[in-house]
Amino acid sequence: MNLLKDTIIPPEGFKAVGFRSGIKKSGLDTAVILSDVPAAAAGTFTTNKVKAFCVQRNTELLTQTSYFRGIAVNSGNANACTGEKGKEGNETFAEAAASITGAAPDEILTASTGVIGVDFPIEKIKESVTMLDFTKVDPEKGFKTASEAILTTDTFTKTASIQFDIDGKQVTLSGMAKGSGMIHPNMATMLSFLTTDLAINPGLLSEAIKAAVAESFNMISVDGDTSTNDMVIILANGKVGNKVIDKETDDFFTFKKALTLVCRYLAKSIAADGEGATKLLEFEVTGAKSAKDARLIARSVSSSNLVKTAFFGRDPNWGRIVAAMGYSGADFNPDGVSIYFQGAPGYACLMEKGKPHHFDTGSVTGILKEKNIFITIKLSDGDSSATAWSCDFSYDYVKINAEYTT
Amino acid sequence: MNLLKDTIIPPEGFKAVGFRSGIKKSGLDTAVILSDVPAAAAGTFTTNKVKAFCVQRNTELLTQTSYFRGIAVNSGNANACTGEKGKEGNETFAEAAASITGAAPDEILTASTGVIGVDFPIEKIKESVTMLDFTKVDPEKGFKTASEAILTTDTFTKTASIQFDIDGKQVTLSGMAKGSGMIHPNMATMLSFLTTDLAINPGLLSEAIKAAVAESFNMISVDGDTSTNDMVIILANGKVGNKVIDKETDDFFTFKKALTLVCRYLAKSIAADGEGATKLLEFEVTGAKSAKDARLIARSVSSSNLVKTAFFGRDPNWGRIVAAMGYSGADFNPDGVSIYFQGAPGYACLMEKGKPHHFDTGSVTGILKEKNIFITIKLSDGDSSATAWSCDFSYDYVKINAEYTT
Repeated sequence: MNLLKDTIIPPEGFKAVGFRSGIKKSGLDTAVILSDVPAAAAGTFTTNKVKAFCVQRNTELLTQTSYFRGIAVNSGNANACTGEKGKEGNETFAEAAASITGAAPDEILTASTGVIGVDFPIEKIKESVTMLDFTKVDPEKGFKTASEAILTTDTFTKTASIQFDIDGKQVTLSGMAKGSGMIHPNMATMLSFLTTDLAINPGLLSEAIKAAVAESFNMISVDGDTSTNDMVIILANGKVGNKVIDKETDDFFTFKKALTLVCRYLAKSIAADGEGATKLLEFEVTGAKSAKDARLIARSVSSSNLVKTAFFGRDPNWGRIVAAMGYSGADFNPDGVSIYFQGAPGYACLMEKGKPHHFDTGSVTGILKEKNIFITIKLSDGDSSATAWSCDFSYDYVKINAEYTT
Repeated sequence: MNLLKDTIIPPEGFKAVGFRSGIKKSGLDTAVILSDVPAAAAGTFTTNKVKAFCVQRNTELLTQTSYFRGIAVNSGNANACTGEKGKEGNETFAEAAASITGAAPDEILTASTGVIGVDFPIEKIKESVTMLDFTKVDPEKGFKTASEAILTTDTFTKTASIQFDIDGKQVTLSGMAKGSGMIHPNMATMLSFLTTDLAINPGLLSEAIKAAVAESFNMISVDGDTSTNDMVIILANGKVGNKVIDKETDDFFTFKKALTLVCRYLAKSIAADGEGATKLLEFEVTGAKSAKDARLIARSVSSSNLVKTAFFGRDPNWGRIVAAMGYSGADFNPDGVSIYFQGAPGYACLMEKGKPHHFDTGSVTGILKEKNIFITIKLSDGDSSATAWSCDFSYDYVKINAEYTT
């Protein structure tokens, strides 16, 4: 099982395409992902009480059926808080995508990302979607353009693919993701669309995606804000022809492992592309009393503005890490905490069993200059662990977010 | 009852003084606040699981007795995560302050603020404290220097006083506070020391300070981090000679009102002095289902990095306010939300009953240029309300926090 980073291989029976409707000032801003045949679908959606129309509609549809033909996505406009017209626009978006594919509108899921509360430009979108001739789309190029079209303030596309054998067949699983701001660990925290030609029943697909999201997208933090629009959707169309996975067999666990690998890579890519980020930070918590405590600590430390500005300033301020652990709500023994920093030049112990540990400032500064820094927080409370990803907090974060809409 | 802003009047029987021990690179860094006679004491302390030695010792002492003579405070070193030596240093600090005042060490509370995990320089502190001659201290000047000595990255001192009549006597209540970073609404979230010559029993004093803190210090947010050291302490020495307040009489409510006014002014001063802040933001939530829901929303919106950077960028991005309301955990009807911005030039409605409201960009930009901006969030769910204070999020926040220890 080999993870192919920054690569998107179209699974059998899937096509996708990204194009321009003119929602954003420039660049691709609309995408359609399509399966030849109805595919089992599952997803996780934002926990924000204010939900965009696409989130409302998808969750509603997923309670009625578990098979869908595709996903229509736009960037540049969140279509949230846009009143009755926005709701209709979302419906029209699905209808337009359905009309060019022979699917019913209710077989098309929708996703939007961008500014909240600005009129949804459905006329432009409808015009560009209905002009599409899907038979002319090259699957490989199409998936690439789709992964570009879903971006907003991102500085690079986020893709990953994996291939593995099930039932004597080579299964392909591919994912694309979008996100570089307004990201915080709480359910589906950005956009990600995964497609696979595996045959699996929707219940197990849902179980697998929920578990993978918990260990990936829910463990990244850029700025602590959870959006109104975030979602992760997976479509599995069964085109590879394996015997449908309908029990928790070894095949199921193989798939779950592959899915988790893809989701973790996409999540890390989002953290690395955090608005204004200069470093990717990986926080590993070990020796925790429970998985919940490990996650609380990893998320609290990785989300702390003070910790993130300290890494931007190359400041080995482990005191801020300890403070963020302390207000995480997790149960742990402060006297058993050890903290290590690791980067290409080596590693350093900054705190040992609750007490400051003398460290060589020069070698720590060397580590802090790196683009990828690993922070290990060792506890003495049990055997549970968790990993969270985040980025440093720079001047450019403020610049990007102060200037976003005006 | 008149609030005297930026003023500190020594209550009868209290002295205070700020001086330099050499903990910080320059300026005053140590203070002692003292009552002639044992004073009823009450306080609220950080909820962070990692607590500085001063917090540990004060909470322990307050379970044993409710009467104290004074408070010894230092800035520049948090004396947290400093091992056995730090614990002893904290004890020695109290002993030194006691030795010059005729009090027992256990009658002196302590407070520290500054960097975590750096050896506590108790020798320097002890030397400067024991050299003090308290009989020579001018109360008025002394309170002023004390309010300076407790500061760290603050750009101005925070003080307020109030005088009111109880039982035919003029009571004085004065407060000083410190805080401009690592501030988030969760229990006592910075340092504040309040003194009054009122006679009141410790139980009611505790009830009053808890209620006042809930509506003031717990409703401010600078960067979402809760420190290991934060505390609010009040001493009431009864020197004015009123009949001791030992029931919830009108006199008690008069005192509680005065205390809340002082705490709210100090809290607002902290928010206005947020690291790198250019604006003070006041968020008022009305029409909420419950006080808890109102507070959750006010705190979530005022703490959002995205909301705070938008105000720095003078960007009327009400969508970010709605998103932060949505992930606050509060129960509310999104279709009943109205949002107003108000400043010296007037006010503007940005959202009305869940829908974007057309506003004049020019007049909103005028409001967003102001130093004090009032944001009203009107809900349709009930009669409860809450107010929170915060500041905008600027380049200088990152600068200050990236460079703090190195």
